[in-house]
Formats: sequence, C-alpha cells, structure tokens
Amino acid sequence: MANILSFLIPQEKKFFPLFDKAAENLVAISTLLEKMVNTNDPEQRKLMIREIERMEHHGDTICHEIFNELNSTFITPFDREDIHALNTALDDIIDYVHGSAKRIDLYQINELTPAIKKLSELILQASIELDVAVRELRNMKKPGKMKEACVRINSIENHADDIFDTAIARLFEEEKDAIKVIKMKEVLSNLETATDMCEDAANVIETIIVKYA
Amino acid sequence: MANILSFLIPQEKKFFPLFDKAAENLVAISTLLEKMVNTNDPEQRKLMIREIERMEHHGDTICHEIFNELNSTFITPFDREDIHALNTALDDIIDYVHGSAKRIDLYQINELTPAIKKLSELILQASIELDVAVRELRNMKKPGKMKEACVRINSIENHADDIFDTAIARLFEEEKDAIKVIKMKEVLSNLETATDMCEDAANVIETIIVKYA
Amino acid sequence: MANILSFLIPQEKKFFPLFDKAAENLVAISTLLEKMVNTNDPEQRKLMIREIERMEHHGDTICHEIFNELNSTFITPFDREDIHALNTALDDIIDYVHGSAKRIDLYQINELTPAIKKLSELILQASIELDVAVRELRNMKKPGKMKEACVRINSIENHADDIFDTAIARLFEEEKDAIKVIKMKEVLSNLETATDMCEDAANVIETIIVKYA
Repeated sequence: MANILSFLIPQEKKFFPLFDKAAENLVAISTLLEKMVNTNDPEQRKLMIREIERMEHHGDTICHEIFNELNSTFITPFDREDIHALNTALDDIIDYVHGSAKRIDLYQINELTPAIKKLSELILQASIELDVAVRELRNMKKPGKMKEACVRINSIENHADDIFDTAIARLFEEEKDAIKVIKMKEVLSNLETATDMCEDAANVIETIIVKYA
Repeated sequence: MANILSFLIPQEKKFFPLFDKAAENLVAISTLLEKMVNTNDPEQRKLMIREIERMEHHGDTICHEIFNELNSTFITPFDREDIHALNTALDDIIDYVHGSAKRIDLYQINELTPAIKKLSELILQASIELDVAVRELRNMKKPGKMKEACVRINSIENHADDIFDTAIARLFEEEKDAIKVIKMKEVLSNLETATDMCEDAANVIETIIVKYA
Repeated sequence: MANILSFLIPQEKKFFPLFDKAAENLVAISTLLEKMVNTNDPEQRKLMIREIERMEHHGDTICHEIFNELNSTFITPFDREDIHALNTALDDIIDYVHGSAKRIDLYQINELTPAIKKLSELILQASIELDVAVRELRNMKKPGKMKEACVRINSIENHADDIFDTAIARLFEEEKDAIKVIKMKEVLSNLETATDMCEDAANVIETIIVKYA
C-alpha cells in the first residue's frame, strides 16, 4: 500500500523516514552494546556481538538506500551535501560501535571495566539525542528541540572525554602488562571515538540549522 | 608545443589530464609498494622505499599544480570544492602508502607478513579502480563505469578491514613482545588507512556523480 | 560603547574581530605550551597546564560566539560553510594543544625530550602564521600574505612530520619499556596532530582564497 501510493508523497519528504530508520538502527545497536558490556556470560556476549554485526550490515543497507534516493531525487529538503554528510556521520557512529564490540570479541577482553560500561552508556545517551534531533529535521522552522539535543550531545561527548582520560591514566598506573594496556586502550579509544562521531553528526545537524532554520 | 597551443584547450578541461597524472602516480606508487613488500633483499627494499619517497614528492607537485590551476581558472568542470576534495583525497592515499613504507624502514621490520602483503595488494587494486574512475570523470553523463569502480573500492576496503582485524587478533595471540606488537600494529594500521583513504576518494567521486551525472 | 554603536558596523564584518580573538587565543595557548615543555619545575608545569585548560575553555566560548553570530547573520563575508570549517579547524588545533599538555600531566611524563620541545616550538610557529593569515582575511583582494603564511604552515607541518618520525624511530631503538613507549608515542603523536590541524586550518583559508580572491 505504502509503495502503491508513494508517488503521492513529495519526493523530498522521502528522506525523513529514511533518516528516522537510520537513527532507529543507531539507537538499537547502541542499546545492545550497552546491554552486552553489562552481561557476564561470555556466550551471551558472543551472541550479542553477532547481533551487533547484523545491525551494522542493516545500517549499511539504510545508508545505501539514502544515497540511492539522493541519486534519483532532484529536489531535496536540504542541501545534497548535508544529506550526504549526515548519512555518512550516522554510518560512522555505527561503525565505531561495531568496532568496539568486535575488538572486545577479537582481543578476548573479559574484564569489562566501569569505564567501558560508562562509555557505552554515554554512546547510548548520545544516540537517543541524535534520534530526537533527526526526527525533528522535518520541523526545521522550529529548531529548538534539535538545538537542545545537539547541545546535550556536545556535553555527553565532553563527559566521555573525561571518562576516557581518567580510564587511560588509571590503566597506565595499574596495568603493568603492556599488551593488555594496548588492547584496553584501543577498546576505550573506539568507544570514545563513537561519541566523537555523535558530535560530528550533531555538527552536521547544526550546519543544516544554520542554513535552513 | 603542448604549451604553445594550450590556450586553445578550454580551461576547464585542463583538470582532467592533471587528475589523470595524479591517478597514474598513485598506481605507480602502489605498484612499487606491493613489489617492495614482496622483495626479500633488504638492500633492494631500501632502494624501493627511496623511490616511493620520490614518488610521494612527485605527488605533492601534481597536487599543487591542481590547486594552482584551480586558483587561475574561472570555469571548472565541477564544483571547485569537489576538485579540492578529490585532489586532497588522492594526496592522502599517497601519504599513507608512503607512511607505510617509511615505517617498515624506520622500525626495521624485516618480517613482511602475509597480512602486509595482502593489504598492499588491496591498496594496489583500489588504486587501479580509482585510476579507472578518475579517467571517466570526463564522461560524467555516463557514470556507469565510475559507479562500478566506486562499488568495487568499497568492497576492497571491507576486505582490507577483515584482513586487518584478523591480523591484529593473531598478532595479539602470537606476539609476546609488546614493542613488536606496537610496531607491526602501526604498519598494518597505516596500510589499512590507505584503503580507507581510497574509499574517501571514491566517496568524493560519488558526490560529484550525485551532483553532475 | 562598542555595544551601543555596534549596529553601525555592517553585520558581516563582525566575523573578523571574532576570528582575530580565536587566533589570538591560539597563539596564547601555543606560547604557554612551548613555555611549559621548557620548564623544569614540575609544580610550575602543573600550574601552566591548568592555565592551558582555562584557555581551552576560553577557546570553546569564542567558538560558540562565532557559531551564534553565524546563526543570526544573513550576509557573511564568505560562505557560511567556510566560516564553519575555519571555526572548527581553529578549535581543533587548540584541542590537540590541550590534549598534549593533558597527557604530559596524566601520564606523569617528566622527561621532556628535545622532540617534545621542537614540536611545541613548531606548533607555536604555525599558530603565529595562522594568526597572520586570519588577520588578513579582511583583505581578501590582496591574498599574498595569506598565501605566504599558508605555504609556511605547510612547510612547518612537513618539518613536524620529520621530527615526529625520527623521534619515534629513536624511541623504538632506545626505550625498552613498552609502557613508556606507548605514553611517549601518544604525546608526540598529539603534538604532531596539532600541526596537522594547523595545516587543515590553512587549507580552509586556501579554499576561501580560491573562492573569493
């Protein structure tokens, strides 16, 4: 039905549901990451990591759908470059969430530290804020909610920076096995970069607001 | 002769041969990298690394030529920003190829592992695809070949990701000398980033297609 | 007084003093970094690091001022995207300067090596060149000084690359404690990335010149 009547929807409005889908997938993958790092059973964790992988592939599909739509649409709700940039930014976050989970698996990290848990929680929070902001893209003339979400994402990213720095300092003080330091540092770094990418996505949204609100 | 008659060439068409030159140099440097990591004689390798360095400088010269042309040309075949971005992206790949070779030299890495060889091969493949795509920029109304090359570059980059991840996991399992882990991890990481940069260049070409095809 | 009469200033000219302020803060933080790494007293260094932190917050405030001005100004002296990009680039440099100082503190690095001192000096030099270029943005029709500053920043960045590479090679040869290698490598890497970000800022300025000069 949706397909049959889709020619009635102005083409440029097709982007909003696609971005909604991307943001929804982001919240889903971040929710699962946060659950995974709080799971003690290694077998359960492995299953969750497989599911995170599946969601990452799903994210790739959505990302390509948006690019294809961009290829075939003449009028877009905002600049093509910004649609491109937002699409890429959302995809990047998912890549780092997946990258973090993959490294926990590959490096056989069993000690899921408070910093890993806290950073995963912050990624989830930032993802939820991005979901709010992305859903408001259709209300460009009332950018208040979007702006607030972007401000909160910036503050979440600052918080993640602090958590990361403190965790790294402690790691160097307490861990004497250099190989373990390298592994843990990389997992923490991937998690922290995921929050940086959330900030990048928020910056794209701020740029769109600058141009259109 | 070429110089004497160059005023007869529409200015905007001067970019195509310049980008051809940049892509040609990229294929040359990637070919040499792939050859170098498959060479057993350390003296031969050292000579090849010097040659890679020379090619990197040549790449810088081409990069500046393109920027200078951009400075002095009013009408360009596509957006100035995209010419800038493509130029930068091609230069970045060459920088990472050079960076990988330089680290093999500086860190005195003599064990050129299968992962190093495979990643170098993938960089060469992606460079060849970029060369195809860049040469097709002048046929913007038939973007089929360019699109196909970009799709293949994306898949090469995914392949490189897998090779990298597996190599890193194995490195942590088998290598107990942390300093060696750090060195090898950085060489692998530079090679893998070179394929990321190939993907970035492909993304710029996809953006140009989005705008002009 | 300035506030009372500010409505007399054409709105688009308000960006120049704001960017001046950002560049001034960059020179101030880089000057302090260079002084800090040349200070032997650990207590003095700690005080300087606190002051660098304060300057980084001040930089954030200026960065937000520029974004707010961008939000409320219809006519800008150059493309909104470029103002956004330059603002972000200047902020990024300050972040890496701060990040370098913070790591020296967190990792309790007491041996401030010649490479650390030299890289800090190069960051200061590049910051001074950026300050020159930023102050010339208002003279877009005479881009000579800006171009020269950008060329010098590129050459400073190349120099920093060499210093970094040599320092890393030496580190691997001489330091057998892998944990110390990781710490020192990261401080050097942050310093070197600060010079990369200076080059990014110079690239934005070059893009603006391409469009407007």
